[in-house]
Amino acid sequence: MKTPHKLTIINDPIYGFITIPKGLIFDLIQHNYFQRLRRISQMGMSYLVYPGAHHTRFHHAIGCLHIMQKALEKLEQKGVSVSADEKEAAMAAILLHDIGHGPFSHAMENSIVENINHEQIGLLFIEKLNQEFNGSLTLAIKIFKGSYHRPFLHQLVSGQLDMDRTDYLKRDSFYTGMAEGNINTDRILAMLNVKENHLMVEEKGIYTIEKFLVARRLMYWQVYLHKTSLVAEQVLVRVLKRAKELTHKGIDLPASKPLSFFLKKTNAEGVFDDHALEVFAQLDDYDVISAMKSWCDHDDFVLRKLSQIIINRKLPRIKIKKKPFASDFITEQKDAVKRQMNLTDAEAEYFVFTGTITNQAYTLKKEAINILTKKGKVVDVISASDQLSLKALSKVITKNYICYPKHLF
Amino acid sequence: MKTPHKLTIINDPIYGFITIPKGLIFDLIQHNYFQRLRRISQMGMSYLVYPGAHHTRFHHAIGCLHIMQKALEKLEQKGVSVSADEKEAAMAAILLHDIGHGPFSHAMENSIVENINHEQIGLLFIEKLNQEFNGSLTLAIKIFKGSYHRPFLHQLVSGQLDMDRTDYLKRDSFYTGMAEGNINTDRILAMLNVKENHLMVEEKGIYTIEKFLVARRLMYWQVYLHKTSLVAEQVLVRVLKRAKELTHKGIDLPASKPLSFFLKKTNAEGVFDDHALEVFAQLDDYDVISAMKSWCDHDDFVLRKLSQIIINRKLPRIKIKKKPFASDFITEQKDAVKRQMNLTDAEAEYFVFTGTITNQAYTLKKEAINILTKKGKVVDVISASDQLSLKALSKVITKNYICYPKHLF
Amino acid sequence: MKTPHKLTIINDPIYGFITIPKGLIFDLIQHNYFQRLRRISQMGMSYLVYPGAHHTRFHHAIGCLHIMQKALEKLEQKGVSVSADEKEAAMAAILLHDIGHGPFSHAMENSIVENINHEQIGLLFIEKLNQEFNGSLTLAIKIFKGSYHRPFLHQLVSGQLDMDRTDYLKRDSFYTGMAEGNINTDRILAMLNVKENHLMVEEKGIYTIEKFLVARRLMYWQVYLHKTSLVAEQVLVRVLKRAKELTHKGIDLPASKPLSFFLKKTNAEGVFDDHALEVFAQLDDYDVISAMKSWCDHDDFVLRKLSQIIINRKLPRIKIKKKPFASDFITEQKDAVKRQMNLTDAEAEYFVFTGTITNQAYTLKKEAINILTKKGKVVDVISASDQLSLKALSKVITKNYICYPKHLF
Amino acid sequence: MKTPHKLTIINDPIYGFITIPKGLIFDLIQHNYFQRLRRISQMGMSYLVYPGAHHTRFHHAIGCLHIMQKALEKLEQKGVSVSADEKEAAMAAILLHDIGHGPFSHAMENSIVENINHEQIGLLFIEKLNQEFNGSLTLAIKIFKGSYHRPFLHQLVSGQLDMDRTDYLKRDSFYTGMAEGNINTDRILAMLNVKENHLMVEEKGIYTIEKFLVARRLMYWQVYLHKTSLVAEQVLVRVLKRAKELTHKGIDLPASKPLSFFLKKTNAEGVFDDHALEVFAQLDDYDVISAMKSWCDHDDFVLRKLSQIIINRKLPRIKIKKKPFASDFITEQKDAVKRQMNLTDAEAEYFVFTGTITNQAYTLKKEAINILTKKGKVVDVISASDQLSLKALSKVITKNYICYPKHLF
Repeated sequence: MKTPHKLTIINDPIYGFITIPKGLIFDLIQHNYFQRLRRISQMGMSYLVYPGAHHTRFHHAIGCLHIMQKALEKLEQKGVSVSADEKEAAMAAILLHDIGHGPFSHAMENSIVENINHEQIGLLFIEKLNQEFNGSLTLAIKIFKGSYHRPFLHQLVSGQLDMDRTDYLKRDSFYTGMAEGNINTDRILAMLNVKENHLMVEEKGIYTIEKFLVARRLMYWQVYLHKTSLVAEQVLVRVLKRAKELTHKGIDLPASKPLSFFLKKTNAEGVFDDHALEVFAQLDDYDVISAMKSWCDHDDFVLRKLSQIIINRKLPRIKIKKKPFASDFITEQKDAVKRQMNLTDAEAEYFVFTGTITNQAYTLKKEAINILTKKGKVVDVISASDQLSLKALSKVITKNYICYPKHLF
Repeated sequence: MKTPHKLTIINDPIYGFITIPKGLIFDLIQHNYFQRLRRISQMGMSYLVYPGAHHTRFHHAIGCLHIMQKALEKLEQKGVSVSADEKEAAMAAILLHDIGHGPFSHAMENSIVENINHEQIGLLFIEKLNQEFNGSLTLAIKIFKGSYHRPFLHQLVSGQLDMDRTDYLKRDSFYTGMAEGNINTDRILAMLNVKENHLMVEEKGIYTIEKFLVARRLMYWQVYLHKTSLVAEQVLVRVLKRAKELTHKGIDLPASKPLSFFLKKTNAEGVFDDHALEVFAQLDDYDVISAMKSWCDHDDFVLRKLSQIIINRKLPRIKIKKKPFASDFITEQKDAVKRQMNLTDAEAEYFVFTGTITNQAYTLKKEAINILTKKGKVVDVISASDQLSLKALSKVITKNYICYPKHLF
Repeated sequence: MKTPHKLTIINDPIYGFITIPKGLIFDLIQHNYFQRLRRISQMGMSYLVYPGAHHTRFHHAIGCLHIMQKALEKLEQKGVSVSADEKEAAMAAILLHDIGHGPFSHAMENSIVENINHEQIGLLFIEKLNQEFNGSLTLAIKIFKGSYHRPFLHQLVSGQLDMDRTDYLKRDSFYTGMAEGNINTDRILAMLNVKENHLMVEEKGIYTIEKFLVARRLMYWQVYLHKTSLVAEQVLVRVLKRAKELTHKGIDLPASKPLSFFLKKTNAEGVFDDHALEVFAQLDDYDVISAMKSWCDHDDFVLRKLSQIIINRKLPRIKIKKKPFASDFITEQKDAVKRQMNLTDAEAEYFVFTGTITNQAYTLKKEAINILTKKGKVVDVISASDQLSLKALSKVITKNYICYPKHLF
Repeated sequence: MKTPHKLTIINDPIYGFITIPKGLIFDLIQHNYFQRLRRISQMGMSYLVYPGAHHTRFHHAIGCLHIMQKALEKLEQKGVSVSADEKEAAMAAILLHDIGHGPFSHAMENSIVENINHEQIGLLFIEKLNQEFNGSLTLAIKIFKGSYHRPFLHQLVSGQLDMDRTDYLKRDSFYTGMAEGNINTDRILAMLNVKENHLMVEEKGIYTIEKFLVARRLMYWQVYLHKTSLVAEQVLVRVLKRAKELTHKGIDLPASKPLSFFLKKTNAEGVFDDHALEVFAQLDDYDVISAMKSWCDHDDFVLRKLSQIIINRKLPRIKIKKKPFASDFITEQKDAVKRQMNLTDAEAEYFVFTGTITNQAYTLKKEAINILTKKGKVVDVISASDQLSLKALSKVITKNYICYPKHLF
């Protein structure tokens, strides 16, 4: 099949024109596995709060590809040698870094697709593609796994200052309209360097990094962990759990073939065969939302109500505070629900539930963001900073939440 | 039900904060009919060309509401009296102006939902809502229909310089990244005035209007009529037609309840009863895309291939030119398809087809955009302009296209 | 002198980072002739209307340099060969294209610096620099003059779609806040191509060009020819004329050395010697504004009043219309001024005067903007356009103005 | 004099349209004292690093006026009553808050205008205007001084989160192109509230405040204290000191009348009479730059060299580090300069000098930024924050610098 000329430039509201290199990268994008990401929203249920947040994992992956290209160009201008093969492999690795995501990934991993996460599924996909593409992805896989001897390539794909984060913070900020999360990608890229094959940030970029971390923290509290998105996601987890529960009781639910497959399947640890992968490749947001739409008039009270909550956006109340909620208060809410809706204990827990959220802008446990000083020394960004603020950003913050119905159904 | 405080401010990437007035407007937004617009994409298949173009009719309607508020504020500052009732009615009218749209509206109106268009369905919805809201929408309906005695309110909802166009040009330009379609909303609003109850543009705004019309034309050629979107939409029309054809032959296709209803239904002129409306209210992008996903392995060759074309983005070739294509060329393409895929004449027409597209930035037939001169005279924007360019923009441009497979399946 | 590393990247609010190539380009920027452009405003008196319009010719020249680099990169990606020498020469040519501008250039050319224009002075500067830089600018001069055998390089420097216009439209739009003048530089650059050594725009870029021309026309009417800037500039012309008149009568005015020189000098056709050039190199906005400040309490009524008009922004009334003003009306205004201020006929003409302004977005007389069709044909943008609008933009529009005092002094 | 209609809307690249209220505010803007701010750059010598940074104190003041209007509107929407008089007074106070600035204010206060600072001069101007405007500014003066009984009005004019900072951070970030300093003005304004007449930030705005403080710190280190601006400003201080020194020795330097006045004047503590104020009102950037231009060929070596350094942008080397520079190193540099340029000790200190810079994003000593919790409690932003980072931002950071010639003259 000849490569059509048209697709090689993509219009992006954030970066302007994105040029897609012909060959492997172009062919990967054309593949059904990758095209499927067009049907998977990047931000899950967030559009219920931020109506603009309908961008997809496809778009994010293309954005990552673009800034990876730019980053490698910048590094080459600074004298870091990167071979043509390494370049293509790094681009393939970032392009495919999210290929394992399913619809509403975090919700799904906590409900119907068990004992395997999106990184693991991603690797299965990449290995499958590697077979199809006759081993062209072997180097990309090494970089992806971090086993290649030049770690900076892996760090660009996955680290505390990788191209993934750099794109999604900017993109999510753009589409939600939460301008405060905007980061200066050009400047971040301009500050990168490599020393002894490790990724570095030049000293003069330290405030840029600080701004990046503050923006990240802000996006977590105000967007990713926004209480309305949170409650919607938690309800979604419970819709899917209930659906699985009913399915396993032998009740046949309307659902697409791929979704039915995963509602029926019990995934043992480490078991995700080729067939499961192929079915997973058929699964996207449309299966999940369509199923919930049809469940809005199902006989089962719990499934029906939970589905309506999301489809018609009639969300429960959610409260968040630093300390855990008193058990008395929780019991009281559950009792009210049980009484008013005539539910069992187990059923009531679908409507009244608690949990915690945590946020940490910078992790001391993972590989550090390294600062390369003017004199050529390497120091962790925290000790390089002239103030305590970065240290503060590495503190884990935990909050508690409770959800319960706003009013009777 | 008590109005939750949270929803009253919405974050919009384009206008920043949008404030939702409590009462009727807020309650309309909460209604399932309106929430459904969250699941209907504003730009149909355009995301296959512009990956950012996933914004919804919900978001557009909220944007229109916002600039209607701004426009009315500006007019009041200029001494145009607008009563509280008129304000609410104008806002309701613009909020609901697209409520009758179904999924991939233009495609659907040319395939499975016949003899009625989205404006007519919209009016049915609004009248139904008017019953539910005890007549609160009576004035909005008058404004919507243009029967209210102050025409400028209708002109703000539907005219050659209405809030609908003002929002969608800006919004579609933003989400596609086609920066050239961006228009200066603030300036347009600042230039509006009213004379004898008709909407006017102040003389100094004439270049702003010209820019608006040029942007509109550009968006049509480069975005709305982009050849790749066009071919995708035309294939979609044919998927749905084929599905209806098969259904009417008695073949049962996997589809959601609402979609099945419309595949089975033959809509006679003027017949769209309450039940049809309720089912239509369940129909959105998720029904259509999900159905096509499941049809990708259907027995019928035509349905299967057309569905795959869209889902996997393997689009046919499309050519566009000023003159019609030679019938020899068309026949040649059809013959090739028939031969290679072993199809009948009728089936081949699903894969090889021609059509025309037209574009006109400004219509002389409709009500003019009126310019109010400094001396208080009213003139059509075309005669007010110092150059011929606006006149030129009112010329209808027609182009011909042909679609046929790029390569064998 | 060693090139300091720091200066090689410049922060630009419009393009982000601008990289300055080391060597000739860097050294030209360091030269006093070029640094002087930091003290010459790009938009003259426009800041009296648009308070943000204080950007300089220095900044514009740097911006031009940047997009010239980008344009050449794009062309090379399309297979147009450009040698390293040609690249440097094209960059030098665009960098220096405005080097001959004095302060408030248009006003000055109509008052104290006669019989020579900024292009001619520019060439004198460039030839002088060529001596200093040992002939390194010889190719740049050829390109500048249009005598090099590859015309597209000259067309990028000076044509109807050159890098000069591309930068100044965008920059002036940005700094004035007149968002409607914004143009899509990235897209313009992406659409350029070269055929037989002539600059072309690819066919799909035709709407981009149309938008560019409409933006240009709009900027002329709403910004460059804004009536308040116009009146301020016309008063400035008259301040300088009066100052020259008084100087030639033997009256010594406070003024900087370079300004005094030009107030005294009578420039014969074709005579602008080396000394004049050196003095001109000392002249900038600061000489002119400072002089007017000191003239605000001069004995001469005309000089004093005109200076105050600008410094304190107490501008005369200006009226603009299509037809010339009636001579009765003009005489009436002059008589009033003569009577009320006790002036002679000649003096009154400093306060009451008429003139014309013209605007033409695209000129048929100059070299056309050529469109390269998909089939490889070359056509003028006007015949390539599907509508009459571009033709309309090539019409010359003329308007008349009159200025006279708003009120008594 | 009748208010011309034209001036009442100003185009601002940042906020779009700014509407100027007629009456007192409009008349203040028309006054020569205020128009003078058009000739005073907001960022002094920063344009030598950021070529776009030519915006003026006039523009900043107009921007402050705009957001003060917006802030008061927001507060009123939240039920805070603000009378028409208070509104006008608050707007007048913010409009005039910088009226006392001279050219290159910080440099001037450290050289020729001694024993009085721009706040004190500002108050003198405002009191003078109050006489001219028959006491209309009495309430504005109270608000300005902080003696009005509703402190939030003063806090909006001058505090750790005032409209001054809110505008200048955004504006300086915009014009320098240092996008990272951009702050979300809309969101800051939306988060303001008033409790018991004190300005508060609502709890949900806490990350916005954190972002504001981080942006402020970043702007200090990367822009306001940028080493190249710093060295230019320090040289400017020394040019003016040298000029004053020579003047007091009886050497007559070319300079405008107002500048000569201040070169001659010795300002005793608390003595700044009406005449001095009138002369000060004549002084702006044009006097200082013009003088330096003329001093570029003065007989005095020190004055000449220092002036050339700035005018031709041939800046000395500057080094910055945490610890003070060794006295040996300083002496060595001075000795080299003395020897090579044949200077006295005192003269050498004009070319080799050291100093310190400090930066603190948030001050514990001043009135706190107060957070109003959902439950109605008031807490300092530092204790409200969930992390240590804000505390860290209140630490004072001090750095040392040394400047000395890059190379021989």
